Amino acid sequence: MAITIDPSELAKDFRLDVRARLTQLDRRLKLVGFLSTTQSPSKTYASYTKAGCDDVGIDFELIEVPKLELEAAIDQANSDPNVHGIIVYYPIFSSEHDRYIKDLVDHRKDIEGLHTYWAKKLYHNDRFVDAARTKKALLPCTPLAIVKLLAKARATLGFNTNDLRPLAGASVTVFNRSEVVGRPLAAMLANDGAEVYSFDVDGVLKFAGDAVEESKITRSAALKVSDIVVTGVPSREFELVSPAEIKAGAICLNFSTLRNFTADIGDRASVFIPRVGPMTVAMALRNTLRLYENYHA
Amino acid sequence: MAITIDPSELAKDFRLDVRARLTQLDRRLKLVGFLSTTQSPSKTYASYTKAGCDDVGIDFELIEVPKLELEAAIDQANSDPNVHGIIVYYPIFSSEHDRYIKDLVDHRKDIEGLHTYWAKKLYHNDRFVDAARTKKALLPCTPLAIVKLLAKARATLGFNTNDLRPLAGASVTVFNRSEVVGRPLAAMLANDGAEVYSFDVDGVLKFAGDAVEESKITRSAALKVSDIVVTGVPSREFELVSPAEIKAGAICLNFSTLRNFTADIGDRASVFIPRVGPMTVAMALRNTLRLYENYHA
Repeated sequence: MAITIDPSELAKDFRLDVRARLTQLDRRLKLVGFLSTTQSPSKTYASYTKAGCDDVGIDFELIEVPKLELEAAIDQANSDPNVHGIIVYYPIFSSEHDRYIKDLVDHRKDIEGLHTYWAKKLYHNDRFVDAARTKKALLPCTPLAIVKLLAKARATLGFNTNDLRPLAGASVTVFNRSEVVGRPLAAMLANDGAEVYSFDVDGVLKFAGDAVEESKITRSAALKVSDIVVTGVPSREFELVSPAEIKAGAICLNFSTLRNFTADIGDRASVFIPRVGPMTVAMALRNTLRLYENYHA
Repeated sequence: MAITIDPSELAKDFRLDVRARLTQLDRRLKLVGFLSTTQSPSKTYASYTKAGCDDVGIDFELIEVPKLELEAAIDQANSDPNVHGIIVYYPIFSSEHDRYIKDLVDHRKDIEGLHTYWAKKLYHNDRFVDAARTKKALLPCTPLAIVKLLAKARATLGFNTNDLRPLAGASVTVFNRSEVVGRPLAAMLANDGAEVYSFDVDGVLKFAGDAVEESKITRSAALKVSDIVVTGVPSREFELVSPAEIKAGAICLNFSTLRNFTADIGDRASVFIPRVGPMTVAMALRNTLRLYENYHA
């Protein structure tokens, strides 16, 4: 049977580290969250942000604001020197309008790493924000959380995860190529040395190093060779990934709110990671500290 | 019967003006178009761009590039001092990925005005790019084309269109609130003094001056008071706007590729504008000149 990794345990380790580093600062940091929707997942994410902030010692203010007043509220937080980080709970409008809002948040306060400034850094594998290469670029929370959880799984299996290219030689299949998770995740895994098959409704792309190319590989061929399988398909139409399809000993991770693996996936997987949520929050807190060090300290 | 305005006539006037101003420059401008799709509307738009460039005297190079090489090709055009304008033919990937690409084009070469830099300018009604307020901000091509066509229609009806707020007192209904056309259009019309009811599947927003608020107005109530009706609904499910619904003498404009008005709309409308295409191209050429004057001259 596979080992199950609970993301809340790893999240706790990261929060402890963030907390320790925060106590060395000469001031408390302040994070502002904007809630413009009554949707329940957003409210839940906001309450988890609050709990995470309380735990590490960051002041958190949740501002509930009508969606048509959100833009002005973001402007105000951008220019407030006492606000060090901003998080906006999506979805709010349509996908394209929400994309516009993501770019309204000053990238120096965008703890989720959603601004196009950060996306460009990632897709160009440009890992620093300064010419001296001392200040690390921000990575988006959920893909980063997944990378950290996969590293934990690999360490559990005895792999050396401190290598510069810790995933060299590994094959990965990712079902999801959204701009928020799947595409940045594929790029990050490829930057770490993996060969990544990225599936979505538009087809398959193969990410390797800096190169991205179209691929004709089938789902079954990709799963058969993949050491890691990541799923994030928010649809009940998706055919659940089953033990028979995967490589023996594969690491399996699901970040969808729906179950994307059959319940018996652990019969053939080595490690199963059923969810990511708590690690996403931990990475948001870690990013808050990084932005402070980079820009506000 | 309503007057029908053919956008190709107004487009010709604008092209003549652009051509005259281009001859006064000491160099020829160069526009690069990127075609990464085989979709027929994109190819058509590209051929219209070419014809427009030929007409006004701009060098046009169409670069057909696989979509996975598009980003590198844009980077190259961004840094090429001999390229003064860039146009990318969408759609290519998903809506969010395409949004990312729009922000890769240097805003100083983005003749379509699609970069978030220009969207922010528009939504903040910040009309200049320099502190001295001598260099005008760019407006997105299709909404700008619509504004110019509506001004032409209003002039035909005897309205003074040279006023600072030429649409003061006018009510407008717009069916479409996409990030590319409907939302910027509503903002531009409101900046010009109109009260705008913006309809889409998420509901109705009212734009007036700098304010945007949710509205409970029904389609029939909005149409009854609207001096201008603009449609851009690319769906056959849309109930065509009919003469019985509109205010007598209303100006009606359709920018969808589908018909959104009944064929007899001219029985009650004063002016009918059935399409916008040629004016979009003319505005792209005009924007090329403006970007050159603002940044490259």
